[in-house]
Amino acid sequence: MKKKEGHVRSWLASANREGCDFPVQNLPYGVFSTSDGAARCGVAIGDMIVDLATCEAQGLFDAGGAFSKPQLNAFIAQGRAKWDKIRSRLTELLTKGGDESLPLVPMRDARLHLPIRVTEFTDFYSSRNHAFNVGLLFRGAENALPAQWTHMPIGYNGRASSVVVSGTPIRRPMGQLRGVNGPEWAACRRLDLELELGAIVGADSPMGQRVSVEEAEGMIFGYVLLNDWSARDIQAWEYQPLGPFQAKALGTTISPWIVTQAALEPFRCKGAARDNPLLPYLHEHRPGFYDLAIGWKMNGQKMAQTNYNVMYYSSAQQLAHHTSSGCPMRVGDLLGSGTISGPAPEQTGALLEMTQGGKNPVTVNGEPRSFIEDGDEIDLFAHAEGDGYRIGFGPCGGRILPAVE
Amino acid sequence: MKKKEGHVRSWLASANREGCDFPVQNLPYGVFSTSDGAARCGVAIGDMIVDLATCEAQGLFDAGGAFSKPQLNAFIAQGRAKWDKIRSRLTELLTKGGDESLPLVPMRDARLHLPIRVTEFTDFYSSRNHAFNVGLLFRGAENALPAQWTHMPIGYNGRASSVVVSGTPIRRPMGQLRGVNGPEWAACRRLDLELELGAIVGADSPMGQRVSVEEAEGMIFGYVLLNDWSARDIQAWEYQPLGPFQAKALGTTISPWIVTQAALEPFRCKGAARDNPLLPYLHEHRPGFYDLAIGWKMNGQKMAQTNYNVMYYSSAQQLAHHTSSGCPMRVGDLLGSGTISGPAPEQTGALLEMTQGGKNPVTVNGEPRSFIEDGDEIDLFAHAEGDGYRIGFGPCGGRILPAVE
Repeated sequence: MKKKEGHVRSWLASANREGCDFPVQNLPYGVFSTSDGAARCGVAIGDMIVDLATCEAQGLFDAGGAFSKPQLNAFIAQGRAKWDKIRSRLTELLTKGGDESLPLVPMRDARLHLPIRVTEFTDFYSSRNHAFNVGLLFRGAENALPAQWTHMPIGYNGRASSVVVSGTPIRRPMGQLRGVNGPEWAACRRLDLELELGAIVGADSPMGQRVSVEEAEGMIFGYVLLNDWSARDIQAWEYQPLGPFQAKALGTTISPWIVTQAALEPFRCKGAARDNPLLPYLHEHRPGFYDLAIGWKMNGQKMAQTNYNVMYYSSAQQLAHHTSSGCPMRVGDLLGSGTISGPAPEQTGALLEMTQGGKNPVTVNGEPRSFIEDGDEIDLFAHAEGDGYRIGFGPCGGRILPAVE
Repeated sequence: MKKKEGHVRSWLASANREGCDFPVQNLPYGVFSTSDGAARCGVAIGDMIVDLATCEAQGLFDAGGAFSKPQLNAFIAQGRAKWDKIRSRLTELLTKGGDESLPLVPMRDARLHLPIRVTEFTDFYSSRNHAFNVGLLFRGAENALPAQWTHMPIGYNGRASSVVVSGTPIRRPMGQLRGVNGPEWAACRRLDLELELGAIVGADSPMGQRVSVEEAEGMIFGYVLLNDWSARDIQAWEYQPLGPFQAKALGTTISPWIVTQAALEPFRCKGAARDNPLLPYLHEHRPGFYDLAIGWKMNGQKMAQTNYNVMYYSSAQQLAHHTSSGCPMRVGDLLGSGTISGPAPEQTGALLEMTQGGKNPVTVNGEPRSFIEDGDEIDLFAHAEGDGYRIGFGPCGGRILPAVE
């Protein structure tokens, strides 16, 4: 634990303000554009963005031109030694006494883009509270937690093409819903969020080759906030026996800033207690979770907050399991943690759980809500609290547009 | 129906031989390399490959340089008008009286590659016989066919990174299997094939926008044979409630040649009779299936043969359903039909069905088989019979390597 870095300060005042998500200890990566330039890579610092493409053009470091591209994949593919080198150089340049002539762009003047080309998207189901709560609603108490749940990180392949960056409006989907006399075609009536952390895979693994939990940890570049919008009524009708499909394809919102594994390192901690020993291929060589507060707001009102340390399987365990059959992984693969929920209603990462399937509506700015209504905005947040600084994720929001019949 | 094209002949004798998969009526697209050149696009004709990159360099047609790339995606993305133009030009050049100086490469000297960069892979479940037979084994007679099955093409997202071209060896996976005292880590004991046809999506659709069945048909470039290798024991333990995951990630083999929709057009026909009317968004404007014999061999012995016309949902219906929530589709998306099975055991597209879950082994070259053993080779085949010619798919095979513990 190296939380005692509170004395490190940037020469940029906004980076040192209390509650700032982007102090010099963070340095998250993203992709931005301004009115006068193409999309390129940057790093957030205070209320500014370091223009990495221009930095490289000025000879401040070498990333083979990767920062001029409109996604981070080419940089990420250069591997951990390069990630470390660039982070170390940026820390030097941005710390008090560094280079105050660095090319910076005010964040308010920039448009933020999807930071990576998402190669494939896999969503897991690794919060025990969430799995139990949802299982209870969908399948009853006896079958709530599936038999294999405490033995493996259950996951399924999601749809990469519908992953969008924070701020992108999400259209309420039409779909098949279970009706009294067979299915009906209607707009989703049970639209929900899922509060997740997404891990970005930063290295390829070859087909037919398994990756250990330790190797998997080394393959993870960083994390984003992730809202896996879910149409619960479409899901209930379609999901047996092959899993959720169109219920999860309406959109998945991620934050524009990728917080690196390196920035979260001081907050490493244990996760939930285990019910039973895991098979050796899932053994952890060290704690794989982070002490990271995470929650969500609806229309500006804080609805729930929990911590990533409630999770049962880490992203390294998820990635190791993902390769257990020999499945090849690639740079840009996105692994959703699964909805993060604590035990209490005000710690739940989905309305389905918070309202017990819509039976107990909650009040938002004086209005009742069982599920998400048209025009509602959902914003996720997360931050790890260091000594005199915090590692924040910035915004991850989206507003719901009405369905088109 | 325009089957009466038997009089059309190529100047290349091998294309006119009885039983040839690649007559001038077919012209399937692939990617090949020779010892002296990089991978590039080609079209199969008889026992030769038309070198499309060289053709374009010689000014025989214009595809914007797309044929020099090692995947067909860039060509496919140019759209249907271009597909029609190039097909028409190639037909003219290859028909008797055409251009006998075309740059051809003997197929035996070429290495065939994955024809497309698979953007995402979705697998459906649209053969009624297969869904019923498998449901019976996994869930019993009462729940064999899921309630929504006759109302929608059930599908799930597969893993694109594990799609490989015919001839690539497939490693038997390790995995979690249900044991007497909890799960065990072991090599898969119930390794199976799935006989499928894969549709290649040839046009993008924007997020939030649905595609009709008619529009979907216009978006399909062509078809490949597809073997979705399946680890039945891994699947049985992992698949509830979120669907198959590692059981289907060990490898999916596709044929190197993409047979175009245009080549299959004369064989268009109806599919299976419907139990109930479909919701309007799945209505077909015209028959969406093909009279296409399809089957598989094990170690050279023919095991089963059925017809694509037994299917309940066409690839156009699958694609329309895929966009029903507003899910964006992209050039290079691969849609598996689902295992194609007729009603009789000798018409089944998986050993699970053929042997009733392994209970009734079959005999292959004098040896009993319940599931696939190490060293076994599975080859798929398909052909549509015209008047004096046939549209074949060529080989789609793979051999199983032993597990690595």
